Amino acid sequence: MPRNVAQKLLADHLVEGTLDPGSEIGLRVDQTLTQDATGTMVMLELEAMGLDRIRTELSVQYVDHNLLQTDEKNPDDHLFLQSAAERFGLWYSKAGNGVSHPVHQAHFGRPGALLIGSDSHTCAAGALGMLAIGVGGLEVAMAMAGQPLYVTVPQVWGVELTGTLPDWVSAKDVVLEMLRRHGVSGGVGRIIEYHGEGLAQLDAMDRHVIANMGAELGATATVFPADDAARSYLEAVGRGDEFERWEADEGATYDLTEHIDLSQLEPLIARPSSPGNVVPVAEVAGESVSQVVVGSSANPGLRDFAVVAEILDGHQADPGVSVDINPTSREVLADLISGGWLGSLVGSGARIHQSGCMGCIGMGQAPASGRNSLRTMPRNFPGRSGTEEDAVWLCSPETAAAAALTGQITDPRTLEQSHDMTYPRPTLPEQYAQIHDMLIPPLPAEEAQAVELVKGPNISSLPDFEPVEDRLAVPALLVMGDDVSTDEILPAGSQVLPFRSNIPRISDFAFTRIDQDYPTRARETEGGHVVVAGKNYGQGSSREHAVIAPRHLGLKAVIAVSFARIHWQNLANFGIVPLEFEDPADLAQISVGDEVVLEGVHEALRSGGTLVASIAGRSVSLTHRLSDRQVDMVLAGGRIPLTAQQV
Amino acid sequence: MPRNVAQKLLADHLVEGTLDPGSEIGLRVDQTLTQDATGTMVMLELEAMGLDRIRTELSVQYVDHNLLQTDEKNPDDHLFLQSAAERFGLWYSKAGNGVSHPVHQAHFGRPGALLIGSDSHTCAAGALGMLAIGVGGLEVAMAMAGQPLYVTVPQVWGVELTGTLPDWVSAKDVVLEMLRRHGVSGGVGRIIEYHGEGLAQLDAMDRHVIANMGAELGATATVFPADDAARSYLEAVGRGDEFERWEADEGATYDLTEHIDLSQLEPLIARPSSPGNVVPVAEVAGESVSQVVVGSSANPGLRDFAVVAEILDGHQADPGVSVDINPTSREVLADLISGGWLGSLVGSGARIHQSGCMGCIGMGQAPASGRNSLRTMPRNFPGRSGTEEDAVWLCSPETAAAAALTGQITDPRTLEQSHDMTYPRPTLPEQYAQIHDMLIPPLPAEEAQAVELVKGPNISSLPDFEPVEDRLAVPALLVMGDDVSTDEILPAGSQVLPFRSNIPRISDFAFTRIDQDYPTRARETEGGHVVVAGKNYGQGSSREHAVIAPRHLGLKAVIAVSFARIHWQNLANFGIVPLEFEDPADLAQISVGDEVVLEGVHEALRSGGTLVASIAGRSVSLTHRLSDRQVDMVLAGGRIPLTAQQV
Repeated sequence: MPRNVAQKLLADHLVEGTLDPGSEIGLRVDQTLTQDATGTMVMLELEAMGLDRIRTELSVQYVDHNLLQTDEKNPDDHLFLQSAAERFGLWYSKAGNGVSHPVHQAHFGRPGALLIGSDSHTCAAGALGMLAIGVGGLEVAMAMAGQPLYVTVPQVWGVELTGTLPDWVSAKDVVLEMLRRHGVSGGVGRIIEYHGEGLAQLDAMDRHVIANMGAELGATATVFPADDAARSYLEAVGRGDEFERWEADEGATYDLTEHIDLSQLEPLIARPSSPGNVVPVAEVAGESVSQVVVGSSANPGLRDFAVVAEILDGHQADPGVSVDINPTSREVLADLISGGWLGSLVGSGARIHQSGCMGCIGMGQAPASGRNSLRTMPRNFPGRSGTEEDAVWLCSPETAAAAALTGQITDPRTLEQSHDMTYPRPTLPEQYAQIHDMLIPPLPAEEAQAVELVKGPNISSLPDFEPVEDRLAVPALLVMGDDVSTDEILPAGSQVLPFRSNIPRISDFAFTRIDQDYPTRARETEGGHVVVAGKNYGQGSSREHAVIAPRHLGLKAVIAVSFARIHWQNLANFGIVPLEFEDPADLAQISVGDEVVLEGVHEALRSGGTLVASIAGRSVSLTHRLSDRQVDMVLAGGRIPLTAQQV
Repeated sequence: MPRNVAQKLLADHLVEGTLDPGSEIGLRVDQTLTQDATGTMVMLELEAMGLDRIRTELSVQYVDHNLLQTDEKNPDDHLFLQSAAERFGLWYSKAGNGVSHPVHQAHFGRPGALLIGSDSHTCAAGALGMLAIGVGGLEVAMAMAGQPLYVTVPQVWGVELTGTLPDWVSAKDVVLEMLRRHGVSGGVGRIIEYHGEGLAQLDAMDRHVIANMGAELGATATVFPADDAARSYLEAVGRGDEFERWEADEGATYDLTEHIDLSQLEPLIARPSSPGNVVPVAEVAGESVSQVVVGSSANPGLRDFAVVAEILDGHQADPGVSVDINPTSREVLADLISGGWLGSLVGSGARIHQSGCMGCIGMGQAPASGRNSLRTMPRNFPGRSGTEEDAVWLCSPETAAAAALTGQITDPRTLEQSHDMTYPRPTLPEQYAQIHDMLIPPLPAEEAQAVELVKGPNISSLPDFEPVEDRLAVPALLVMGDDVSTDEILPAGSQVLPFRSNIPRISDFAFTRIDQDYPTRARETEGGHVVVAGKNYGQGSSREHAVIAPRHLGLKAVIAVSFARIHWQNLANFGIVPLEFEDPADLAQISVGDEVVLEGVHEALRSGGTLVASIAGRSVSLTHRLSDRQVDMVLAGGRIPLTAQQV
């Protein structure tokens, strides 16, 4: 039976299960990437597992998120990550080398490979005919330890491109059109596969733009074929010999289908404050603009900057606009210099920032209160820019450049008249800049074993995760209602996040939005405790700290009416027993301080049966939904100690 | 009688007093500069005075300090400053244009002019034969309102330079030699004037390096003659017609003299954590280095970056070193691009940051804990980098580049052997890059009057400053001991400084290190209050917030045994009556809450006589040390309302 590219990639990496949409499978992971914001926890997890050396074909630690060094925490993290990369056998990319996704594509992208990364935009690598999936930190750590990636088989959504893009319309507008049609959850449970004759005009970096923002559609992955465009790209980065053709078979079909006629597209823009609020630029033209930001993983290609430079060249940016240029990488910066484009940008009034993610993750270039900021970035969730009352719009480089010139939202097609301009099509070099020495290769195994992890004062090890006892007799320290979110369990924000590498310290914030004294009471309660909650416990973010911090304070089990999916998985991953009331009415009978006695926990979990607890002397029936694999994990104290036993 | 350059510059601007060292004089101010960290308060002061338009020849508002935008406060400040520049008739330099001092020198430096600026490194402009003095914000505001600058006549310290600088030794080593000999207070009460045959080899940007760090010697100003070097510089920035010769007369003498034989100098470095801890680089060679930062107002010239680029060209920076490049200005960046130097830096592993002050004022590039950071900057006070446990060293670009290559402190002269290198002497362009449009000129007066100040949610106006009443009957809210510092009156730091433009909000921190309830109690006390203290009240920083905030909370007078000089001046400037105990023993009799009654305050201040207060019913004799001019100012409610009456 003829197969599409996504099916071929899945089949090629299948190690457990069968490829029926909706069922769980295990996939062999070839490559991983981590960035600094998530990587410190991943490296602490590797340390806690006692991993000696990674078992992937290739893993790379990038530093691109936390580049603003206003105190010692970020540079200390960078030194820690560098030492961890040496210790465990990863490649290391120093601060200043640039955004992980395009750098990874240039140096390590390989058609047919499976890449996972602890960054949601890892999916960008689909541009080269890879299967590339963003996942949580522990999934990456497990892959480095040699374990498969477990996923639910997605549907494959074939998007056929026909026609030719008009002048002033580019790849960003293609993915904005997908968002205009389907919104931010249109891709959930799907791999998006682009195909059709329209592909020929999209080079690998254009495809990177589209694959990157598949994350905004909620897709599991985005896949392009590895065709002549992938070959040309690999040749331009000096790795033509690594090209391998991956294309859909003649007659291949898709679970769902879609068609975009590129010739019908016009410049599009996402209004504040969702990537799904897409409208034609022409519809909002004239709104005043105080900032334009060009860069990030969503428009990382040399062309994306060069086209802005050619539009601005010889003009001065509007006096009311801050034009912020965020060069993707050291190599893009080198090409911008040698092509003359950086000089044009500097001369026209742009601010040139260090290479990295910056404003895209709120790490710099926050806009002024309530003023419109146009960005070539992928996301504009409220406040993500760093400014509480922000107004961030997402658009193509062409639309961004037009606003920089005029000080207002401007359909770039109108520059032909207003500025007597023809659409610039920058001539890119045949070979991109290649600075091979910028990446530090893994140490040989013998040398690596001698490396000590470098931990600044704010970096601590992960705490030990003890196995679950067979009998618990502990108090209920909190009794909560429905819909408790991870923001209530462990808040994010600038007060808390700096302690991302310091579990003891970040634990001081656990549950404090619900009960300020919880950390103190938990620390004073020898032998541990449980918490009790209503429906949908743990809704919201996927952050692992929301289970690790309470676990560190002695949380043994959560008894709830029901759980949110990801948090439930996280509890199990970190060895906290997630139990559900057989009769939700029991919740109302429980008070803070009640003693909870659980007997025969091991047997009850293994058998899958009901566990009868004694709570303040009353019998209460509890159930669980753990698979056999998950029961093993929980009883061992979580996935880390279980893996530590195995490696 | 033959005169030196400093004497000529003073005489040319004298409007009050006589030029006897130690006496107070008034000087006509031609130009002012403000930067964003101090400028917001200056602009609020202009607003409070009701100034319609500045009366200086030229005033410029730069944005170079607070460039990291992690929330809306900094970009909101930038918009406010831009609107204030428009309103009051200043030039405006947008964020990204670069560091005030070198940009000012390039665009507005003029031999013979008197420049003051609310930044301690304003003195750098002495490189061009200007008299340039760093002062507090209110002094700048007053100069803009047309008032003279009042200073104590300094001694003139003639430093004769002879001989020729050896290879690998540059201007930074000359001023480090001055610091090695005289320490950080060696220049107090002095103008340093460089002269002699050795000057000929120092171009205007070399002189800028030396004049800039006159601030580190504590000097009032540093002066170079306006000679052929100044002429060449002005020609290279396209303003040759503004050259005017200012040289010492034949036979001119100096109050103090010094001699440096340049040929005897070697590479020098200031150890942590004072610019005065200077030793030869050779003495500390081999210490490991984790960061190298090139930039700031202390080494801002194109040559200072070009020499680093030529040393690094074709090599890769040591893997353990973060090489941070802080291009001085948009124009220096343009020249670094066109000269090929930026490409070399990028290729060798440097991180390129936006133009501005950055790490020099702890706004980015903080080093890792306890790791050595070598910087071409002017200051290394403990913690100034942003890292509590920092280890910052100050050195020349040559020494910085050598450490970037080797990963350890390295005498750059040894590169000749170790790297088979000859000392690079970069060939500078005959014309520097000139981007005239980057500076926004003052609006015409008619248009300016219609401009509204743009105030984000964190920017408030200065409170009104009421005149001093003739009778006070108010409680003593605090009774303090000796040596109360401005850090106790109003702390600095990242929690407090973001409210620099918001007096009501920053007042919540007033005196809280002494009494957490002071702000609340002060707000609840209708009709105002006084505070009482021992000796040396107000020691420490010159920050004006330490008087404006308590004033805002109702502080009418401070009764102390004695005052620190600058804080005493600040109290008078802002209309708080500074009174001293005739008998220090009275302090011990006063308790918190005692009622203080002062009758006939106006007459007592004007007559200079004793003021007999009734404190809790006891008679206490108080005195003051205000001049007639200062009494007028205090009675009016401070210098701002007095000036408001006059303008």
